[in-house]
Amino acid sequence: MLNHIPLNQISITDSFFAPRMRLSERVAIPYMWAALHDQIPEVAPSGCIANFEIAAGIRQGDFSGWWFQDSDLWKWIEGAAYSLHHTPDPTLEQKIDEAVDLASKAQMADGYLDTYYIIRNPEKRFTNLRDHHELYVAGHMFEAAVAYYEATGKVNLLNVACKMADCLDRNFGPEPEKLKGYPGHEEVELGLARLFRVTHEERYLKLALFFLDMRGKSPCYFDEEARARGEEPWPAHAGNQWKQRMYHQALVPVREQTQPVGHAVRQGYLLSGMAETGGLLNDTDLVQAADRVFRRIISRQMYITGGVGSCHEGESFTLDYDLPPERCYAETCASIALIMTAIRLHRIHPHAMYGDIIEKALYNGILSGISLDGTRYFYMNPLEVWPERCEQRYDLHIDDERQGWFGCACCPPNLLRTLTGLGQYLYTLGPKELFVDQYVSSSINCSDFDICIESGMPWRGDVKLTIQKASIEPFTIALRIPSWAASSIFTLNGKTVQPDIRNGYAEFHGTFHEGSIITAEYEMVPKFIHANSHVPNYAGKVALQYGPMIYCMEEVDNGSHVWNLLAKEESVSVRFEKDLLGGINVVRIPGFLEQGQEEGLYTDTPLCYHETVLTFIPYYAWGNRGKGEMTVWFRSLLRESLPRNS
Amino acid sequence: MLNHIPLNQISITDSFFAPRMRLSERVAIPYMWAALHDQIPEVAPSGCIANFEIAAGIRQGDFSGWWFQDSDLWKWIEGAAYSLHHTPDPTLEQKIDEAVDLASKAQMADGYLDTYYIIRNPEKRFTNLRDHHELYVAGHMFEAAVAYYEATGKVNLLNVACKMADCLDRNFGPEPEKLKGYPGHEEVELGLARLFRVTHEERYLKLALFFLDMRGKSPCYFDEEARARGEEPWPAHAGNQWKQRMYHQALVPVREQTQPVGHAVRQGYLLSGMAETGGLLNDTDLVQAADRVFRRIISRQMYITGGVGSCHEGESFTLDYDLPPERCYAETCASIALIMTAIRLHRIHPHAMYGDIIEKALYNGILSGISLDGTRYFYMNPLEVWPERCEQRYDLHIDDERQGWFGCACCPPNLLRTLTGLGQYLYTLGPKELFVDQYVSSSINCSDFDICIESGMPWRGDVKLTIQKASIEPFTIALRIPSWAASSIFTLNGKTVQPDIRNGYAEFHGTFHEGSIITAEYEMVPKFIHANSHVPNYAGKVALQYGPMIYCMEEVDNGSHVWNLLAKEESVSVRFEKDLLGGINVVRIPGFLEQGQEEGLYTDTPLCYHETVLTFIPYYAWGNRGKGEMTVWFRSLLRESLPRNS
Repeated sequence: MLNHIPLNQISITDSFFAPRMRLSERVAIPYMWAALHDQIPEVAPSGCIANFEIAAGIRQGDFSGWWFQDSDLWKWIEGAAYSLHHTPDPTLEQKIDEAVDLASKAQMADGYLDTYYIIRNPEKRFTNLRDHHELYVAGHMFEAAVAYYEATGKVNLLNVACKMADCLDRNFGPEPEKLKGYPGHEEVELGLARLFRVTHEERYLKLALFFLDMRGKSPCYFDEEARARGEEPWPAHAGNQWKQRMYHQALVPVREQTQPVGHAVRQGYLLSGMAETGGLLNDTDLVQAADRVFRRIISRQMYITGGVGSCHEGESFTLDYDLPPERCYAETCASIALIMTAIRLHRIHPHAMYGDIIEKALYNGILSGISLDGTRYFYMNPLEVWPERCEQRYDLHIDDERQGWFGCACCPPNLLRTLTGLGQYLYTLGPKELFVDQYVSSSINCSDFDICIESGMPWRGDVKLTIQKASIEPFTIALRIPSWAASSIFTLNGKTVQPDIRNGYAEFHGTFHEGSIITAEYEMVPKFIHANSHVPNYAGKVALQYGPMIYCMEEVDNGSHVWNLLAKEESVSVRFEKDLLGGINVVRIPGFLEQGQEEGLYTDTPLCYHETVLTFIPYYAWGNRGKGEMTVWFRSLLRESLPRNS
Repeated sequence: MLNHIPLNQISITDSFFAPRMRLSERVAIPYMWAALHDQIPEVAPSGCIANFEIAAGIRQGDFSGWWFQDSDLWKWIEGAAYSLHHTPDPTLEQKIDEAVDLASKAQMADGYLDTYYIIRNPEKRFTNLRDHHELYVAGHMFEAAVAYYEATGKVNLLNVACKMADCLDRNFGPEPEKLKGYPGHEEVELGLARLFRVTHEERYLKLALFFLDMRGKSPCYFDEEARARGEEPWPAHAGNQWKQRMYHQALVPVREQTQPVGHAVRQGYLLSGMAETGGLLNDTDLVQAADRVFRRIISRQMYITGGVGSCHEGESFTLDYDLPPERCYAETCASIALIMTAIRLHRIHPHAMYGDIIEKALYNGILSGISLDGTRYFYMNPLEVWPERCEQRYDLHIDDERQGWFGCACCPPNLLRTLTGLGQYLYTLGPKELFVDQYVSSSINCSDFDICIESGMPWRGDVKLTIQKASIEPFTIALRIPSWAASSIFTLNGKTVQPDIRNGYAEFHGTFHEGSIITAEYEMVPKFIHANSHVPNYAGKVALQYGPMIYCMEEVDNGSHVWNLLAKEESVSVRFEKDLLGGINVVRIPGFLEQGQEEGLYTDTPLCYHETVLTFIPYYAWGNRGKGEMTVWFRSLLRESLPRNS
């Protein structure tokens, strides 16, 4: 299993992500720190740090917040730790150390650390793995510990994490005296595998595998555990047992799973844990299972924005080809979980397809989760919004504008760690190969080579790669050819070349000298995309893609009733407007506004068509200019009149 | 206020409704009788009759079923009573008398009759008008009593009803010592006004007006009543107070209401009570308020099938132009409530528009509620069904096939009383005028005239009216010109005439002799209907209407993925197929099946179009040939290529 380039060896310099990373450092890290400390008056208290203080015995009171409230701290530390690679900040480090110190005081003698149970009832720990997220919380602790160790070399949090991992190892496992359970919300599997990567403690990896392989076994552990608590295993509110087992991806053992089910973030974390653990263990069977489900998601249950989870109820996957644009969930965290899986599968068997999905989710369904000023968030990322309906239909749960810090604050710190840790998604390092997975202007300085990548992405398709040092030879540099590229032209030291194409990557083999330059030009053209025939929601409609970006129409640019607009696909203009929404490509397409009668609901009187111009902005940038209608899918004259030509 | 022709003076002879009425008599009346008696093994016990027996002290046990379970009996009696007009049945009369006898035994000394409170706690009666439907139940009792009296001349149920009405009159009213409340679920208003019509007891009409005018007054009675019970007026599960007041149409006084809100059946019953009461009292203001809301419904919140209520949550109206085809409620009972309102407004100020709406709802959204064999029911009447989604999406509540008797059995007896009482909707009698509102072959034999109407409706547009006797002169016969008629040709005694057109009716004035014949030919043409530009859900789509019928495509005729079908509007064939679905017009339209790629979710590869023929059946008949996709709205080539020609 390959790895990414360590974050301290990458310096991101582009004009798209670098400002967003700095914004996170400047805005989100201190804001979240204050929120965790209940210091933001207009936000409901988190109770997170207070819980640790109570658990540590240095404060009186009861636990507050969700039972997984601890994870907010761990995700914040992970995100903050990544930022330390590119922006050293002793004050921030001091804050993290202070939190770690507090956590270590809250930790029980045997290593157990979950403030919900420590405060409420330590005796009851590990008795409700299905609903109470102590293993989930532990997983985030492990990820944070790895990140902080890698960023600073400090072992303080790593020690806390290892103690908890050891505690889990003493309590869970195949030995007769140990518990045979697994988490209701996956995450500990990935955390343990990552902890193994830095500690080389094989027990951790074995425990990750144990958790994975116990899931879905019969009889269902969650049933037995509930009965042991004296409860009905399947309370009426949770639906029948199949529904609940699907919610937890526990219907069949993970190696037999073929399709995504249940809670989309859990499904994604499970897959990333399977990929990480399977990759490290060379467990082909486990990796294949993860890959199978991943491919099923992207081929049947993924929105064109990279959003996943088509249903608010259960925040869940539904059925193949069920992708309603307005009644989605498409949680920001679920798209993050999708790229966490994709990058791991890519590192096991590199293929451009994974990078395509990462690119799609990153530039669209993930980035839409945060406002341009970095302070407000979408939990759900719909592809169509009619504000009046959002506000007046009780059964519609999407928001028509981004919210501040949430009570269940999972998305904001997840976005933080994705942005500050972006470097992990850009390059994959093989023994004698560098995969350039995403084109984000940056420089790599590692022991074997120094490379500088400059690119106009995401607005232009040009890439220039300058090798400043290369001490391995022969060496391969592999450039992902984006799936949207209408054409690709490559040069090596000024000469057009036709590199080998393997698994969607253009490969440059050989010896590179100081100053060697490779360029690529990926042609961006406006693409009118239609959905697979099996999808009911988008029949007769198209979506617009230009480069990696999916576009949308907003009311502020197009007037209300965007559903009455039709595009003429023939002539499309694209212009970079530096002063609009932080600088974006704006796409304009001539078309028509369809107008029917104003009075009466239903008639057969003819419709009128007025010429107009449709204006599109990148989807991620929607909702930054007040409330209004928005749609990704729209009507197109070419598509609607195609049969005439057939 | 005009009236309908008494049911015993109409004999319905057509081949569309008459068989359905006989089916109801043969199948539904005995089935429901058995269901009310808990005698149907495969159906959960209703407890309805048992409750009356317990309340009467001739059976032990607790109340079972919904707190409005009594209403099932009353609605059944009303429906059964109507059937006695055309099908005298001493055994059925005996059953009704038996039930009435039981009810009179259950009735309290002061006339109070509601088995829920009599069994559970008579002391608590009238303390939760908001949630417990004792006034609603009373309204249905009154309607049943009127119907049974009119059918048989028997006063047994009328006496029971009047005792209860007197009890209500003693408990509610403007006098200081009386309660100032009104029902959470409207119905008693209409019931009281109808009771007044036969008893001429003005207290009943005054009480109806009192209930109407108290609604929506400030402070809210429901709040005070809840506080008196020691409860929070607006429990969290019911949403905020505005939501709950809207649910009960109690946000503002009814005379100030301008739009439909909340529970659609309640809204409809309220409007019919306002129209009936206002009409009888010549209260123009009250009638105008009902008419205003009614017109708002039909111009902004009515499905093309006559369905109303766009949301499952709260079974409710939502916002203007929000008419999702799949996420509807469109309850059968709500469409019945709509025609109950329309007929009353028509009788106050006759206009063809009301008949158009009655026709639309009757032939489409109401009739779709019952299977062709008369044994199974839709509660909700969606305009689009994808069975896989119905079954696998937890948040989608429509059924993809009709169900048997429901636990909350409101729709089946409501359909029964609508079908057996159909005669009420056909003709309106003025002092010297007969309005022919619906064209259902039938004969009228009253003291002043005998008229026979023969029509090919709903499949053909021919109408022949033969006057066999007419002793009033001058006399006007007014024929509603259906809104769908492409042209109308009238003859009088064989000669083409051009009658006066007033309020959408063709008027024939004068003296008619025995054997006078009026004919009308209303041209039926296939109409491709589009929705108002404000409606997001149907942009780019059309619906097909032929005569009064709205059509739909089913999977069984068109294959799966009906969303990929496009119609060419140019050539449409209509054929009556007598052996299909009980005999229907089948509409066939040449068109295309759009086919995209099978693999991959999103591409810009060209689509293929295969010529095919689209087959449409009347909407009411859908779902009688097994599960499958269904859609009312579909894509059409003509509409979609219009801009090319502009």
